[in-house]
Order: sequence, then structure tokens, then C-alpha cells
Amino acid sequence: MNSHDKPAVVLLSGGLDSTTTLAIAKHEGFSPYALSFAYGQKQDIEIGAARRIASLLGVAQHHVVTIDLALWGGSALTSNIPVPKDRSEADMEHGVPITYVPARNTIFLSYALAWAEVLGAFDIFIGVNAVDYSGYPDCRPEYVAAFERLANLATGAGIENKGRFVVHAPLMKWSKAEIIRRGLSLGVDYSMTHTCYDPKGELACGHCDACQLRHAGFVAAGVPDPTRYV
Amino acid sequence: MNSHDKPAVVLLSGGLDSTTTLAIAKHEGFSPYALSFAYGQKQDIEIGAARRIASLLGVAQHHVVTIDLALWGGSALTSNIPVPKDRSEADMEHGVPITYVPARNTIFLSYALAWAEVLGAFDIFIGVNAVDYSGYPDCRPEYVAAFERLANLATGAGIENKGRFVVHAPLMKWSKAEIIRRGLSLGVDYSMTHTCYDPKGELACGHCDACQLRHAGFVAAGVPDPTRYV
Repeated sequence: MNSHDKPAVVLLSGGLDSTTTLAIAKHEGFSPYALSFAYGQKQDIEIGAARRIASLLGVAQHHVVTIDLALWGGSALTSNIPVPKDRSEADMEHGVPITYVPARNTIFLSYALAWAEVLGAFDIFIGVNAVDYSGYPDCRPEYVAAFERLANLATGAGIENKGRFVVHAPLMKWSKAEIIRRGLSLGVDYSMTHTCYDPKGELACGHCDACQLRHAGFVAAGVPDPTRYV
Repeated sequence: MNSHDKPAVVLLSGGLDSTTTLAIAKHEGFSPYALSFAYGQKQDIEIGAARRIASLLGVAQHHVVTIDLALWGGSALTSNIPVPKDRSEADMEHGVPITYVPARNTIFLSYALAWAEVLGAFDIFIGVNAVDYSGYPDCRPEYVAAFERLANLATGAGIENKGRFVVHAPLMKWSKAEIIRRGLSLGVDYSMTHTCYDPKGELACGHCDACQLRHAGFVAAGVPDPTRYV
């Protein structure tokens, strides 16, 4: 890492998308400060993946922040609502899925903004994607643009003319296959990433929306799926 | 409380402004869900005040969420940076004060949005004020408007046409004296509220910005200051 690199806060869940985003941030010359959350998710095994990925890819610092979104639930990921399995593509394209966690990305980006402001960083990376799975409202380009606008009103930076926050969402318009190809070109080892919403130990279920989309991405990219399934 | 009242999430620090805001939300016919934060603040005595106020004023539910903003500090309220004392009005009007907590209101509003979405509520109340103390970027009207816009893009509500989030900031354009007069007219007992940034036990320091503005408010309103000082 070059000490002249610009600092950037990178949201890192430990999944395929955020890991690719971290690799892109590094490739673009940023010094990444990785931020992960133990938020009461069923798939908390992803936190271990995030730790290993942050260490292997090399980050300036990694925080895992504990917050309790299971306090009010409202999602299959944070309550006893079952994670849906074997949904068709048509089902997935219809409405907001029950795996949506209310305001999760807004909370994550707010923390990223707080840390960025303390660091003096103006760049935030998030691995949201609106192509292969647009059911989440907080993964849309208009959402990211609205958060960027908010960030520049919320902080001292705007008042003191220090700089302008940019929220980077480099995967926004890519298919899952394009994301995988880009990550592989940057040397990402996807066997280290965790995607499944309903894992058994370290093994992916293979049937939740996240598993299905991930697997289809590897198939479409024409590369072997390194995921270990139940 | 009328069971037909509309639910609203009300941010409640336990201070003068948020307590007045809670009283206003109730007066406007909302059923309040109060939300407070133990965020690593020096003045964590305010949490006890919030609990007593929520109980006395009557709320549908009260959550005190523990989050750790002292993790990265960056503020006199969340680090060993001393709280400034006896600043002049001119000093207070200049720049962003060191008691500003990076992105705090954005994090608080994000949690409020999450809870509101789970509750099926579309109204969020926050006691920010831009008149008597405009040094905080996240207390300005343009900030609140930007968050409201974000809220409607961030959530399932917009996609599913269920409703529209409104962020109420009823104190925004009032002087501290006007806030106090309004609160008194609604029966608020300000002796229960805690404002000081640097209390000694239950006693206010009387010298931090928050104490000075609060005391000046009581003087301007022509009512006795019920605060117990060191």
C-alpha cells in the first residue's frame, strides 16, 4: 500500500459483491478502511469471511461493528421468519423480498460516513447491484445518489469547504457474471467469500435467492463455482 | 392513548429539545415510539432522563439502542477531547463545534427509519433546531429534507406504494425560548430533562455550550431555570 493513497471506507460483508468492490477500490489506488457489521444476521458466518478477506487483500484497518437489527426484526435474515428457498426468477423479480432488512444499507452507509468523516476520507464504496437482483430498494442508483447528496449536507465537510463525499457503487450496472469476471481479473479468490442467507456451518444451502443468483453468475461467467454446498 | 393514533418514531435524547418534540408529537395525535441511544457519550446520564420522560409522558414503546460511536471518536462527546467551556456567542456561531459527533443524526435517523418501516409507521420526529445554534450541519432544514427524500428511496414503502415517510422537525425555526414556552404550554416538566455535555453526577456544569444556550433560553422565556448546576 502506498502511503499517498487516498483513504476510502469500504463496506465489506464478506460476500462476492463486497469483496469484488474492495478489490476494485484497491485497484483504483485507494487505501481501504473496511467496515463490517455483526447486526444479528442468521448468516453471521460471513463476518469470519470478511475478516479473512480484509486480511488477505490488505486493508489499512478493519472494524466489525456490533449493532442489533434483530431488536425489531422485520426480515427473514434477522428474525425467525424462514429464508425462502427455490424461488423462481419470476418470483425474485416481484416486489421486495422478505430477506430485505429494513434500512440496513442506510444504517451501514451512515456508519461508513461517520468513520470517513473522522478519518478525513471522502470516498465510500458499497457493492450494491441493481441488475441481477433489483428487489432491494436500497440497492438502486437513485438511492445511492440520494445518500451521496445527504452525506454532503450531513457533515462538517460541506460547511467548512473541505471536500465532497462520493459514494462509489462500481458494481451497480454489472451482471453477476461481469462482477465475477472483474473480480477474477483482479485476483479475487471467491472460495473465501460467503453469500448464503441460510448456511449450515460453513456450507451454503444452495437454495436461497442469494445462493441461486451466485451460482447462476458462475455458470454465466463460464467458470467453476468454488462454493461448498450442503 | 387512542389506539387509532398513527404510530410515529420519536428520537428522544432526554434533553430539552427532544422532550418538547415528544410532547408535540403526542399533542398532534401520534402514538409515539421513542428511540434513544447509548452511543458512548460522556453525558450518558441523559439516557436515564430519557427513560423517565418516556415513562411519564407515555409512549407506546421505548427502545434504548446501544451503539459505539466512541469506537472512532472524533468528537468531544465521544473521546478524551475536553468539552469547551464558557465560549462566547460569537465563538459558538463560528464553524462546526468540536462537540459535533460525525454523522450522529444520520445514524439516529437511519435507525428510526428501520424501526418505522418494521412498525409500518411513516412519521419520524427529531428535535433539531437551526436557530439558536446552527453550528451542527445535521440540524439544518436542507439536511432534514435530504434525509426525508432518502427515506422514501431507501425503503420498500416507495416501491410498494404503501405510503410516504415524513421527517418532522417541529422545532427547526424556533428560538430556545419559543421551544420552552411551547413545552410548558404542553405540560413538560423541564426539571426532568438533561442537557449538559459534561455533567458531574446529576448536576449540569453550567459552562458548556449546551448549558449556556439552555439557561439563556429560560432567561429569554422569562421562566425560572429548573436545572440543578454544580
